[in-house]
Amino acid sequence: MRHAVILAGGSGTRLWPASRAARPKQFVPFGKSGETLLESAIHRAAAVAPGGITIVTARTLEDATRELVRNLRIGPPIEVLAEPIGRNTAAAIGLGAAEIASRDPSALLVVLPADQRISDEAGFITAVTRGLEAVERDDVIGTLGIVPTRAETGFGYVEVADATLGQVVPVLRFVEKPDRETAEGYLASGRYLWNAGIFLISARRLLRELDEHLADTSNAVREIAANPERASQLYPRLPSVSLDHAVMEKATRVVTVPASIGWDDVGSWLAMPAVYGSDANDNAVAGAALLDGRGNIVSSDDGTVIVAIGVSDLVIVKSGNAVLVIPKSQAQDVRGIVDALAARDDLKRFT
Amino acid sequence: MRHAVILAGGSGTRLWPASRAARPKQFVPFGKSGETLLESAIHRAAAVAPGGITIVTARTLEDATRELVRNLRIGPPIEVLAEPIGRNTAAAIGLGAAEIASRDPSALLVVLPADQRISDEAGFITAVTRGLEAVERDDVIGTLGIVPTRAETGFGYVEVADATLGQVVPVLRFVEKPDRETAEGYLASGRYLWNAGIFLISARRLLRELDEHLADTSNAVREIAANPERASQLYPRLPSVSLDHAVMEKATRVVTVPASIGWDDVGSWLAMPAVYGSDANDNAVAGAALLDGRGNIVSSDDGTVIVAIGVSDLVIVKSGNAVLVIPKSQAQDVRGIVDALAARDDLKRFT
Repeated sequence: MRHAVILAGGSGTRLWPASRAARPKQFVPFGKSGETLLESAIHRAAAVAPGGITIVTARTLEDATRELVRNLRIGPPIEVLAEPIGRNTAAAIGLGAAEIASRDPSALLVVLPADQRISDEAGFITAVTRGLEAVERDDVIGTLGIVPTRAETGFGYVEVADATLGQVVPVLRFVEKPDRETAEGYLASGRYLWNAGIFLISARRLLRELDEHLADTSNAVREIAANPERASQLYPRLPSVSLDHAVMEKATRVVTVPASIGWDDVGSWLAMPAVYGSDANDNAVAGAALLDGRGNIVSSDDGTVIVAIGVSDLVIVKSGNAVLVIPKSQAQDVRGIVDALAARDDLKRFT
Repeated sequence: MRHAVILAGGSGTRLWPASRAARPKQFVPFGKSGETLLESAIHRAAAVAPGGITIVTARTLEDATRELVRNLRIGPPIEVLAEPIGRNTAAAIGLGAAEIASRDPSALLVVLPADQRISDEAGFITAVTRGLEAVERDDVIGTLGIVPTRAETGFGYVEVADATLGQVVPVLRFVEKPDRETAEGYLASGRYLWNAGIFLISARRLLRELDEHLADTSNAVREIAANPERASQLYPRLPSVSLDHAVMEKATRVVTVPASIGWDDVGSWLAMPAVYGSDANDNAVAGAALLDGRGNIVSSDDGTVIVAIGVSDLVIVKSGNAVLVIPKSQAQDVRGIVDALAARDDLKRFT
């Protein structure tokens, strides 16, 4: 059966103040639907994973996650696994795979980060289905390769010889986040696709790859799948490493499905124009606002009006008990702001 | 006896969003004490007016004013008079004077706008006492003449020959708000003082001046003092004119007491540095904030943190259900913003 593993343990400080330690990015309502990113991910998973959905989250977010799941009405059964401490994606995906394999040893997995946005759901389903057929038929590892729309330096890429949309093509290599110049070369070449962190793989193959490349982790996640109470003891000892780095970059027979499906990782406030669109003056606005400048990104998620007169190219956000004002050119640095707040006794309650 | 007339009917749109139609400037907590400007004005009045305090406000603010007064513990009795419609200061002061004169024909009046700030209360008491002695002895009209600390174009001025602090000196003339160049000349000359709108005058003289210069108003306020229910009918017909324009500029034997008492009219957000002080980077902050720029004015009155990184010379205010971001150079225009909000059906609830 086809199962989904949703990675939902992220702390999401880059969308502060909408995201907080206690309410990370995946719990933030986003886009015109007002749906949280995690809800969207679950609906997306339900469309491709009739066998069930396993959400891997952090113990600190377990209650919030179960609460959100309880209020959803979807077909496939949903399981919530809570990691006692974050150990990056290799451990999280391994845990999901081991747990699913203990019930369904021949499971095929669709691994989905919870904090992404995909506007073309039908295109997503088509691409995943195409990829899963190849995984099942050829025992390959599949990914979605997103056709880039800008010279993004914040994502990893996969190189391919042929980026024909909807085809299943071999991955020549994985490359890490490039610098600006390299990213522009990638974009111009047409042979580099964004690595969206969406993986298609059989549970059996995944655990076999972990056995080979990350044996401590594969042993631990198998043990935890059998005895969940072992997690607190075993997790802290695991290496913190991404699946990309631990497995994908080393594995053979990796394929990708080039896709153009309105994907974005909502990694910072700069993703807002893609989500909400922009007006004639290039302002992207969510919530009530009065503006007369250009190129502003303005978000209010609680009915507060934002009046920004005589200013341009600013990010202005009101959420909960905080207001953020920062030039767009610095909006990638929001994580540093959260760190600065956390370092001050009088302000750390706002993180 | 000495009485105070506090003018508290202003709409105060220039401090939006802290001031609103239903909560104008005089009801906004201000300064480190957290006291509203109206509370401060009442305490100030109580120190110089043992005979009683008459607050003249708008009918729309009458309940809020009475509620505020009910919670105060001060010596002199407090009366609240509500105008059905605003008709500027000549009518408001005339109404207060007529009402007080009906009980105490020989009353001396200290007229105080409610929306001002005075940091040196002892200096205020000394200056007012000095002025009232002259009013009582010589039947003059007195004002406080504030020694200017900047070339302000937003205030009127009085010209004197001698601006010695604490002396009672003749006013040569009243002048209206000057342009920038003129204001700089005034500041350099040392012979121009800010007209603070604080008047010292006997009720009898005030009503006599109104009889002479604004007979409709003096007849109306005398009639309303005798029959308050007449106000709704009489007020709309009255001319809307300031006491400065109707009386002070025309009267003879007007004196002023040059005073340097930390006075400001809190007329816009630009007054904040004078109220709260500025830090080493010239930022004036009220409430929780994290800043790294220079010359910002930041106010949050409800526990919301304001994080402003990479921006300078902005006014950033969070109050109630609104956030304002505007360059300091445009902060005199906040009234225009309120008008713009009021003109939009979807935003007028924020005025």
